[in-house]
Amino acid sequence: MAGTAWDVFEQRMHELADIGSALGLLGWDQQTMTPPKGHGPRGQVVSTLSAIYHERLVDPRYGEAIEQVAADEASLDDARRAMVRLARHDRDRATRVPTDLVRALAEQTSRTHQAWEAARHASDYSIYRPELEQVVALTRQKADALGHDGERYDALLEDYEPGMRVARLEPLLGGLRDALVPFVGRLLERPAPDDAFLHLAYPDADQWTFSLELLHALGFDFEAGRQDRSTHPFTGGPGPLDVRLTTRIFPDFFPSCVFSTIHEAGHGLYEQGMPPALQRTPAGQAPSLGAHESQSRFWENVVGRSTPFWEWALPRAQALFPTQLAGVDPARMAAAVCKVQRSPIRVEADEATYNLHILVRFELELALLRDELAVADLPGAWRERYVEIVGYEPKDDVEGVMQDIHWSGGSIGYFPTYTLGNLYAAALAERMADDLDIAAHVRAGEFAPILAWLRREVHAKAHLQTAEELMHGITGRPLGHDAFMRYLEGKYGELYGL
Amino acid sequence: MAGTAWDVFEQRMHELADIGSALGLLGWDQQTMTPPKGHGPRGQVVSTLSAIYHERLVDPRYGEAIEQVAADEASLDDARRAMVRLARHDRDRATRVPTDLVRALAEQTSRTHQAWEAARHASDYSIYRPELEQVVALTRQKADALGHDGERYDALLEDYEPGMRVARLEPLLGGLRDALVPFVGRLLERPAPDDAFLHLAYPDADQWTFSLELLHALGFDFEAGRQDRSTHPFTGGPGPLDVRLTTRIFPDFFPSCVFSTIHEAGHGLYEQGMPPALQRTPAGQAPSLGAHESQSRFWENVVGRSTPFWEWALPRAQALFPTQLAGVDPARMAAAVCKVQRSPIRVEADEATYNLHILVRFELELALLRDELAVADLPGAWRERYVEIVGYEPKDDVEGVMQDIHWSGGSIGYFPTYTLGNLYAAALAERMADDLDIAAHVRAGEFAPILAWLRREVHAKAHLQTAEELMHGITGRPLGHDAFMRYLEGKYGELYGL
Repeated sequence: MAGTAWDVFEQRMHELADIGSALGLLGWDQQTMTPPKGHGPRGQVVSTLSAIYHERLVDPRYGEAIEQVAADEASLDDARRAMVRLARHDRDRATRVPTDLVRALAEQTSRTHQAWEAARHASDYSIYRPELEQVVALTRQKADALGHDGERYDALLEDYEPGMRVARLEPLLGGLRDALVPFVGRLLERPAPDDAFLHLAYPDADQWTFSLELLHALGFDFEAGRQDRSTHPFTGGPGPLDVRLTTRIFPDFFPSCVFSTIHEAGHGLYEQGMPPALQRTPAGQAPSLGAHESQSRFWENVVGRSTPFWEWALPRAQALFPTQLAGVDPARMAAAVCKVQRSPIRVEADEATYNLHILVRFELELALLRDELAVADLPGAWRERYVEIVGYEPKDDVEGVMQDIHWSGGSIGYFPTYTLGNLYAAALAERMADDLDIAAHVRAGEFAPILAWLRREVHAKAHLQTAEELMHGITGRPLGHDAFMRYLEGKYGELYGL
Repeated sequence: MAGTAWDVFEQRMHELADIGSALGLLGWDQQTMTPPKGHGPRGQVVSTLSAIYHERLVDPRYGEAIEQVAADEASLDDARRAMVRLARHDRDRATRVPTDLVRALAEQTSRTHQAWEAARHASDYSIYRPELEQVVALTRQKADALGHDGERYDALLEDYEPGMRVARLEPLLGGLRDALVPFVGRLLERPAPDDAFLHLAYPDADQWTFSLELLHALGFDFEAGRQDRSTHPFTGGPGPLDVRLTTRIFPDFFPSCVFSTIHEAGHGLYEQGMPPALQRTPAGQAPSLGAHESQSRFWENVVGRSTPFWEWALPRAQALFPTQLAGVDPARMAAAVCKVQRSPIRVEADEATYNLHILVRFELELALLRDELAVADLPGAWRERYVEIVGYEPKDDVEGVMQDIHWSGGSIGYFPTYTLGNLYAAALAERMADDLDIAAHVRAGEFAPILAWLRREVHAKAHLQTAEELMHGITGRPLGHDAFMRYLEGKYGELYGL
């Protein structure tokens, strides 16, 4: 009987995973392969498949199947217990939001996205404002429908960073702010490294070749994935045995392709490391976006933006770009790709100031959800915090409050996962250094021991626990900003002679 | 009320079309992009989506929705009447085959496909035979479940060539056989044209460039489609606004890429010509595989394998392949790409002998379904007919009865659509010649008037009637083999000086 109940549950769980896999491919294809006229029909197909996914997720018979296997939980191993827990969690949340609200949000975010584009084009926040107000109002409703203990933001955070709460996040990010703002100030008193040589002509085809060389070296399995191009690099696709990375190439700026490739490789290696036994189940994925970002940031920043990395990589790059990189040495290369500056745009920020951009957004989001800030007052609040935290005054609202696409799509609660990823990455690196001489391996181009460590400590554990539990288990310490600050101080101490 | 009933029907019709579109993308991706390890999970995703498609197609509520709109049929225009008729037709057929039989066939064809590969590898029909026997037995059961008037083959034909019946097809193809066999005999008495220059080294990248030049010239809309590579060229993808063509390139044989590109362009132009008003409905597609093949064969053979075409195309090809094509003139090129020979393999056959290969398969399939031939006796029957019809004796069963993949997958009744496509193409060309000077347009590289004619006469009518009704309406005559024979006689009269 238990076997039969499990079979019923498993069949439905697999079916949901398969629909999710199809959506993964449809989404990847939209950003890499779909011709212009195909986007309209594709939207309909994605919408239909999403509706079928939702319908089957909230199906009462799935609920019964979950309760049946949950009733016999004591007989299940850890992996199966996680599957049941996550299936119930996902289904519960899906059932709490009324269908009308789901539809209203879908329609409103589509309208708001268009308004965001029009407002950016006209450099006029007033075009965006009324539509964004609706998104925020509906998102508040959604948070209340999902349920929370008085802190609405928690209900949203749960979509991206399951288990994380504002009560934990606010002091964590506040502490980071207090340490990071003065640290960046000290860095900027130092002379900036020269990075003019990164802005020369780097032919597209050679950048592509170099990016593939990097992926092979880092251990990305091309039998279980591929790399293509897209406007905004991402990692997606059908699943762990078919991971689709993308990169982008600017013919006059070398680091963009290099670091987007390494960043997405970090996500891709994580996906390829998901345990086969958990495939087609909600346990066979990362526990959170922050955990996922820990892997991409680890490879991009800890590994890729380091002198040892360029000791290995620079001769390879120089073989492809002999004139552009003539006379550059590894330390100069590392300093150039780590150059710190107060900049207006998050996505182009260096790893020291990057989190300052996130802190601004987190504080604003929290204030919006707490009804402490009106959408009408966002531009001013944005400007004020940018000056205070990032040390940069946006020249207009396009550079300011209308910089990101996220809020127009209702993605509120997403931004902090970027910073959590950076904090996790630094904590993992510190713990990894107990077991491995990271710099020595990187300098020798030996990435396999590093990947093996991550496979064993992080990837193999998939979503059997929350991200924070996972990271605490590995590092032996609760998450703080200290490891990240030590990492920055070490790196910039050397590169900037601090 | 009528509006409401239509909305319910339409919503379900669109949903099915969207799932079909997703399956179209998944299938295209499998043959073009999927890395090796991704094929296992992809099979599961396709299987899950196919099951959901079937479940929603046979859903009694969909049946009720169809009957509701059908009850008010008099109020519907032609397009909507076709949608209702086709929806009911598809649903009726899906409900008639028991789920157990569907599953048994899926499992058996998977096993048989493996046995086919193993048997080819070992050159041993006895490995394939028992598995093929099961496929044929289950296919007979399926035909009986679908229902027929004593001619089982009719029930299968309906999947590929709706409305076509053996009573019509047998005399049609018999007449073709009687005319074609002696015609090919006469052709082969003539000296064969020299085609050695087609077998030189043609660099891959230049062939790819040439194929794209051809697609642009023929009018393929790259805003609504793309071309990639695959082992076996095909046309597929999500739908009319996103048509995915593939081609293949042999670096030592020029015609393969050229004619597979033109052939698939014919399919692709047809898809791109489907009326927007019929999108996401069963009326918004070709009425049959034969009709589809009429378009690919028209462009490939009537247009592409002609002297006027090479008057336009040869200078372009010579710009890319100056040494390989030095001294070749259009007539010599046309003769080379039309060279007739008795060959063992259907897919590489010229357009005169191609249909002989099909006639063999049709006669054997019909005999199998009529219980007049046992699977055990297939190799001998195949050999006998190849000698008699094609004039070639297969050297073994790999070259003989195990040549095609189709039967292993249960695709019985499919082959005749290839020949119907050739017959339709010739009939359309003859009718088109009343309105257009085809040779003059082709010689000038003016493909737009030809495409416009096909768009108006064929594409715009989609599946509003059967293929035979459609073609009869255009040509004013019932389908026969006469136009095709006149076409061959005209072409080879000139090229072979017959």
